[in-house]
Amino acid sequence: MKLSNYFLPVLKESPSEAEIVSHKLMLRSGMISQSSSGIYSWLPLGLKVLKKIENIVRDEQNKAGVNEILMPTIQPADLWKESGRYEDYGKEMLRINDRQEREMLYGPTNEEQITDIFRRNVKSYKELPMLLYHIQWKFRDELRPRFGVMRGREFLMKDAYSFDINAASSEDTYNRFFICYLKTFARLGLKAIPMAADTGPIGGDLSHEFIIISNTGESDIYFDNNILNEGNKISDISYDDDLNSIVEKFKSYYSASDEKHDKARFDEIVQKEKQMNSKGIEVGHIFHFGTKYSNSMKANVLDSDGKEKTVHMGSYGIGISRLVGAIIESSHDESGIIWPDAVSPFRLGIINLKTKDDEVSSIANKVYNQINDKSEVLFDDKNDNAGVKFSRMDLIGLPNQIIIGSKAVSEGIVEYKNRKSRETEFINLDKLGELLKEMNV
Amino acid sequence: MKLSNYFLPVLKESPSEAEIVSHKLMLRSGMISQSSSGIYSWLPLGLKVLKKIENIVRDEQNKAGVNEILMPTIQPADLWKESGRYEDYGKEMLRINDRQEREMLYGPTNEEQITDIFRRNVKSYKELPMLLYHIQWKFRDELRPRFGVMRGREFLMKDAYSFDINAASSEDTYNRFFICYLKTFARLGLKAIPMAADTGPIGGDLSHEFIIISNTGESDIYFDNNILNEGNKISDISYDDDLNSIVEKFKSYYSASDEKHDKARFDEIVQKEKQMNSKGIEVGHIFHFGTKYSNSMKANVLDSDGKEKTVHMGSYGIGISRLVGAIIESSHDESGIIWPDAVSPFRLGIINLKTKDDEVSSIANKVYNQINDKSEVLFDDKNDNAGVKFSRMDLIGLPNQIIIGSKAVSEGIVEYKNRKSRETEFINLDKLGELLKEMNV
Repeated sequence: MKLSNYFLPVLKESPSEAEIVSHKLMLRSGMISQSSSGIYSWLPLGLKVLKKIENIVRDEQNKAGVNEILMPTIQPADLWKESGRYEDYGKEMLRINDRQEREMLYGPTNEEQITDIFRRNVKSYKELPMLLYHIQWKFRDELRPRFGVMRGREFLMKDAYSFDINAASSEDTYNRFFICYLKTFARLGLKAIPMAADTGPIGGDLSHEFIIISNTGESDIYFDNNILNEGNKISDISYDDDLNSIVEKFKSYYSASDEKHDKARFDEIVQKEKQMNSKGIEVGHIFHFGTKYSNSMKANVLDSDGKEKTVHMGSYGIGISRLVGAIIESSHDESGIIWPDAVSPFRLGIINLKTKDDEVSSIANKVYNQINDKSEVLFDDKNDNAGVKFSRMDLIGLPNQIIIGSKAVSEGIVEYKNRKSRETEFINLDKLGELLKEMNV
Repeated sequence: MKLSNYFLPVLKESPSEAEIVSHKLMLRSGMISQSSSGIYSWLPLGLKVLKKIENIVRDEQNKAGVNEILMPTIQPADLWKESGRYEDYGKEMLRINDRQEREMLYGPTNEEQITDIFRRNVKSYKELPMLLYHIQWKFRDELRPRFGVMRGREFLMKDAYSFDINAASSEDTYNRFFICYLKTFARLGLKAIPMAADTGPIGGDLSHEFIIISNTGESDIYFDNNILNEGNKISDISYDDDLNSIVEKFKSYYSASDEKHDKARFDEIVQKEKQMNSKGIEVGHIFHFGTKYSNSMKANVLDSDGKEKTVHMGSYGIGISRLVGAIIESSHDESGIIWPDAVSPFRLGIINLKTKDDEVSSIANKVYNQINDKSEVLFDDKNDNAGVKFSRMDLIGLPNQIIIGSKAVSEGIVEYKNRKSRETEFINLDKLGELLKEMNV
């Protein structure tokens, strides 16, 4: 993509309304634009990151055998009255009367809606376990929306739901999602730590949050450093392995956010040098709530003995739009964002330093045109001065930069810069192909 | 995908609430499930088609040089008061008060929101022309939602918006979208005819609908058959060609829906044997409205002479969820849907006729496992009888079927069926690889 054809409204100054670094950087780098309090438009750069995260989350759901569907944003209130939860969300739920004065709402979550789909379409134990997910915008009318997309009102979530014939099978499914979540966050380039959690208005008796380590997170977390090593092996796990014992292993390590932290126990079971304390950001949450919704909403199937059984359920959320902010919180420096490879909007930025010099521009254009996958390259061909170009490219955080100036003509060399390490090296134009291959561009 | 792992709740009987064939077939084939009046959940098969259409529409927008963004579903009413349109949509607009009693609405279209993004981020003529699109759910609170996804309340639309420095440039952009739309519908396997149209609440003085031919459409259309031949050459057109003269050529052919039909003129300029009359379904609509929104909302840029200029705008919509229904209306038979290749949820269906026969099952599994791209194959491995399997596979409309039964063991042959022509042929298992290659599976 040529920058001259791209909509990238970078701001020179840090916006005063933003309190935290990810919000500031997303506004400055032209990733988002505020529509109203806690509601944002995603501009091209931001949307590209959002889609990359969404696609990784989707791929890992598919690999775990979860079927994708898409439920609407607007739900009938009747379903929530049936489950008994209509009042539980209070003013956070956006309530709407349609033109026929029917009570509707903008879904903050979808337990009721999926249970309704299930009970109308599934009648036999033979269809179980059934695992379904969707990736859809949700709305929670937060009293004080803040932190940009980290605590917005309209937000993108992946939420999955499971239906099993009994509690034992349902807990196996819970563990399947537990592993799936660890795999997902690892692929996003994040170290996510599972922690036992409260269930809140979703309900149930078993729940884990997945929290990523970050210098600027919203909560304090305490954990055994060994859990990180355990997490490093996650991509090798197959869904045919004994998932329950793997999950038990994870659960055996101490990990807790401040609300649940027990200092005495922490000291008791974790060696002093393995005791870690950090800030953290919640990026996923899984719940096992058994028959809470299937009971009240009568989601039954016929079992192998011909008798009606109430299905056992769980739900599993990942905050996709929130992850964009969370990743920036955990990966940036004073010059801007540093994208992990897997979610970077482009793999490579090319800067033409001398757009008014025909010889330099000819080489820069040639380099850009030779790259096969141009959707992964941002080519700065704009008539700005070098300082503007350098700081803009650093700000938007692409992992690799190629800087093309006068030396390309006089000596046949260009500069390569690694955004994260900030190391630079000069490379002969002849060797550029090899380098790009290494970078998977 | 193995059918035993797939959520495909096929109905035996035609649902009584559905009036038109696409609605009936979408419910029967388990593509959608109604949530409330005019609001649907998309089940796996339906979502797959929706995504295929979305991706083709997206790809053609990108090829035309339009930048993708994503605006939120919930908009502040203030923007609509500023443009003067807040009352124009009447009860069709879903109006919402948030917890702070601010007036909000679920966007039925996005002219105001995009104009706001533009004026806050673009200051110079150098950034023009600027072309932006998004693919997002919209809501129109129809008095009588009907025809399934063809006239639903919550629906998925691609809407693009253009900003130009003057009227002449803006009309060039309009023509660019005109061509882009013809390319898009052709890739979807549809014959779409552009017709001059009224502008309604969007406004402006220049507008075209794109209407596809269908036996069961909502409006009567009249056109010169030569326009179809013109359309056949559309994929050869490059955006570097003289688009204006190509569009003029299209406009020179007679085409009109019943509201605009002029029989005298039709007889005058179209030879009798070229006069076509059919039913049609609107699938796209483009508008040129100049400064209607930029004037009231003060979307100005500095021109090359340093003076403020009001930008000229257009907007361009494609009904993505509506297209799912429209394609079925124009492509089905008494047994069910017949998907055009480009949007079929799977390219191939494999039926194992003898799931309880180990030898047959072993061959069927081998055939399925040998196919590289399994996301394009649906393998019916369920324990149903042959009649159920045949009618289900016909109903869901995959273009190609391979039927594997006893003859696979005794004679090494399987049956190939073309869904559209209903022709079948026996094929030696050795030749199956070649056949699948031909089908791009």
